[in-house]
Amino acid sequence: MTDINRYDPEIIREMIQNKEDQSLIKYLDSLHPADIAELYSELEIDEVKYLHHLLDDEKAADVLVEMDEDDRANLLKELPNEVIAKRFVDNMDTDDAVELIRILDEESQEEVLSHMEDIEQAGDIVDLLKYDEDTAGGLMGTEMIVVNENWSMPQSVDEMRKQAEEVDQIYYVYVVDDDFRLKGVLPIKTMLTSPSVSKIKHVMSKDPISVKVDESIETVTQVIDKYDLVAIPVVDSIGRLVGRITVDDVIDEINEQHDRDYQLASGISQDVESGDNVFLQTAARLPWLLIGMVGGLSNSFILGVFENNFIANPKMALFIPLIGGTGGNVGIQSSAIVVQGLANNTLNAKNAWEQVLKEATVSLINASIISLVVFLYNYFTMGQSTVTTSVSLALFAVVMFASIFGTIVPLTLDKLKIDPAIATGPFITISNDIIGMLIYMWIVSLLTFG
Amino acid sequence: MTDINRYDPEIIREMIQNKEDQSLIKYLDSLHPADIAELYSELEIDEVKYLHHLLDDEKAADVLVEMDEDDRANLLKELPNEVIAKRFVDNMDTDDAVELIRILDEESQEEVLSHMEDIEQAGDIVDLLKYDEDTAGGLMGTEMIVVNENWSMPQSVDEMRKQAEEVDQIYYVYVVDDDFRLKGVLPIKTMLTSPSVSKIKHVMSKDPISVKVDESIETVTQVIDKYDLVAIPVVDSIGRLVGRITVDDVIDEINEQHDRDYQLASGISQDVESGDNVFLQTAARLPWLLIGMVGGLSNSFILGVFENNFIANPKMALFIPLIGGTGGNVGIQSSAIVVQGLANNTLNAKNAWEQVLKEATVSLINASIISLVVFLYNYFTMGQSTVTTSVSLALFAVVMFASIFGTIVPLTLDKLKIDPAIATGPFITISNDIIGMLIYMWIVSLLTFG
Repeated sequence: MTDINRYDPEIIREMIQNKEDQSLIKYLDSLHPADIAELYSELEIDEVKYLHHLLDDEKAADVLVEMDEDDRANLLKELPNEVIAKRFVDNMDTDDAVELIRILDEESQEEVLSHMEDIEQAGDIVDLLKYDEDTAGGLMGTEMIVVNENWSMPQSVDEMRKQAEEVDQIYYVYVVDDDFRLKGVLPIKTMLTSPSVSKIKHVMSKDPISVKVDESIETVTQVIDKYDLVAIPVVDSIGRLVGRITVDDVIDEINEQHDRDYQLASGISQDVESGDNVFLQTAARLPWLLIGMVGGLSNSFILGVFENNFIANPKMALFIPLIGGTGGNVGIQSSAIVVQGLANNTLNAKNAWEQVLKEATVSLINASIISLVVFLYNYFTMGQSTVTTSVSLALFAVVMFASIFGTIVPLTLDKLKIDPAIATGPFITISNDIIGMLIYMWIVSLLTFG
Repeated sequence: MTDINRYDPEIIREMIQNKEDQSLIKYLDSLHPADIAELYSELEIDEVKYLHHLLDDEKAADVLVEMDEDDRANLLKELPNEVIAKRFVDNMDTDDAVELIRILDEESQEEVLSHMEDIEQAGDIVDLLKYDEDTAGGLMGTEMIVVNENWSMPQSVDEMRKQAEEVDQIYYVYVVDDDFRLKGVLPIKTMLTSPSVSKIKHVMSKDPISVKVDESIETVTQVIDKYDLVAIPVVDSIGRLVGRITVDDVIDEINEQHDRDYQLASGISQDVESGDNVFLQTAARLPWLLIGMVGGLSNSFILGVFENNFIANPKMALFIPLIGGTGGNVGIQSSAIVVQGLANNTLNAKNAWEQVLKEATVSLINASIISLVVFLYNYFTMGQSTVTTSVSLALFAVVMFASIFGTIVPLTLDKLKIDPAIATGPFITISNDIIGMLIYMWIVSLLTFG
């Protein structure tokens, strides 16, 4: 089962063309829903529709949950809302159902909900849809095993047996009081080792880790990661248990957060994938390129102002790429370290100045080495000259400035509650490029004209 | 429990100075091991030692597991190997114990193992240490609940009760045959709903998803993520169950992989954190800066070769930063999209040419817009001239080249089984900067001297 690519889409394509339904059903039956979803991503929409029709309702729903967001939206467009309701939404965990319904337009949402047969499920979904997508409430589902703290173990096991019908996977049993306030959690282990206690509350783990329903998703992922949980209970403002979030959804969120940070650092301004169309890709990439262009034109303006420098030292122009590039490289390194430190909680307001100081020390070493090497190179190729001296002086100053700037900008943004990741990548490169040119021109002027 | 920072390190510091052991013990007792580990990270090593001494053995071991790698190494240095063995390693899950022992030098490793009291645990650890750190075997632990397929449910529950003493958390029960080959998995749900079956093999889920012991950690994380598991069984080459990997370790691996990719894209060559010392930070950052410096000096050499261009068109120098910068920005965007596509498995050898074609189309749009805007700017500020024409022509060519280059380089590296992430960031920026200058100079020469 570890071989992720076990199927050949071409063979499946042929079987679909020959309408070999029996073989296809048998084949699909042998596949995990996640593998079927992956197979779908390599087929045309008509073929996907054909295969999806062959699946039984529960598996069809599971496959839909596993599908890539875009593939899923495309398939849903092809299906009547009644089918979506009865074949899929009725058979899904509430958190997955909510995720699916959110991608439909408002009219379709209402239609799907009205077609549902499981009224209790429909009610849960309507409640869940009220929460903001970026909060714990927006990510949670209502499938969980819940027992009362005053029950005995045999009574609890009986109740759990009934509730288990509705729940796919049981990792924790949550314990509540008569008002449904979360009081504890009952590890499976305790159920095995204390089979006959008078009351659950005497064996449960008290004060379980939970999150509030309006907590941000970032906090939820941090808490699950920190405390090594596989699911976390969600409570309302007066501590009543309202749902649970599972670790698989948290992993998806972690991956999305990382992708976003990586893209911001690469100058891509929206969540875009290699599979997206040309228009989306252009829209995500042009903004930073235009900002870079304005930066480049500003540089041409600055260099134009210092035209006398070029006349006095024609070789000066040759080192423009070296100074601009080094400033950019140093700035990106510094900001990346700060952004990561902030994300890992190893960096905070308290030790921020310590970080600036450390950054200055690191840069002092790097700046000295680079400007010395460049000085030696220029000295041996061009001899002692205003250009030789100014290039190395400018390099030193640019490295020092770029590192401090690359450290302070993300720290400041974080203090202003703005995502510091937007300050990495092109922003830092472009700013450092401009300031680098100013420093270089100023030093050359100073050495040339006093 | 959602408030991650509930303690004030200053108050703890004072309590330590006043040796208020009873209050400290009570306070530590109220904290989760992960919170204690976080508290440690804000204290001095002597204070950490003091607190750690107050904890009971099991909690002390748990806290050690939760600690940051560097903090843990510092604390271990302060403790005798016999204490490490008897207080900590004896009380840890085997996967955590292996992780801890790996950071010790060889001599200490042997000494710790020889001091252990739980001989079975020591044997398991010795076996686990043989596996490569970057494989499933290196990440797995041996704590799991295992039943025989021929047992009845009551017999299994009895056995599970015994085994549960050694296991902290039970998520799955694994089913093996008489030769300990993995045959199935028994969801907790099945245990509740089928309490009295004749044989486990009739109710277990067959063919459970598993990984081979020599599988790479990247594959393990992909499998757990894809199939939404909270733990995965590990088998040897003939299918015998040898261990299990839990999702919390997988989340740590995912975070580490992301951090590494992000750092490579930012020109930082080792796994370095904002908390690391000045020497480590310099070592991680100087290499790319030196490569960038060589690139910058190469550019000065190239520009020197085309000195006649500058004499004929003095304004040409002003646009060096614009052309170099735009090439760099475009290249990073393109390579980031490819690296992410490869990481998400949405991009592969089959659709690689499609990606290059799409990239060319996106770039055609971006290149046209940028060179047109710059042409208009230059036309209105400088009028029609060789420089006005060559800057826009060069920009167009550089954007096209940089995007194709940024796409093909990571695709090629991936084909050669080299991590494509190393091709992002400085590598692409520096290459595109040099090639951009060549293109610019060549076009200016052509238009000036025919």
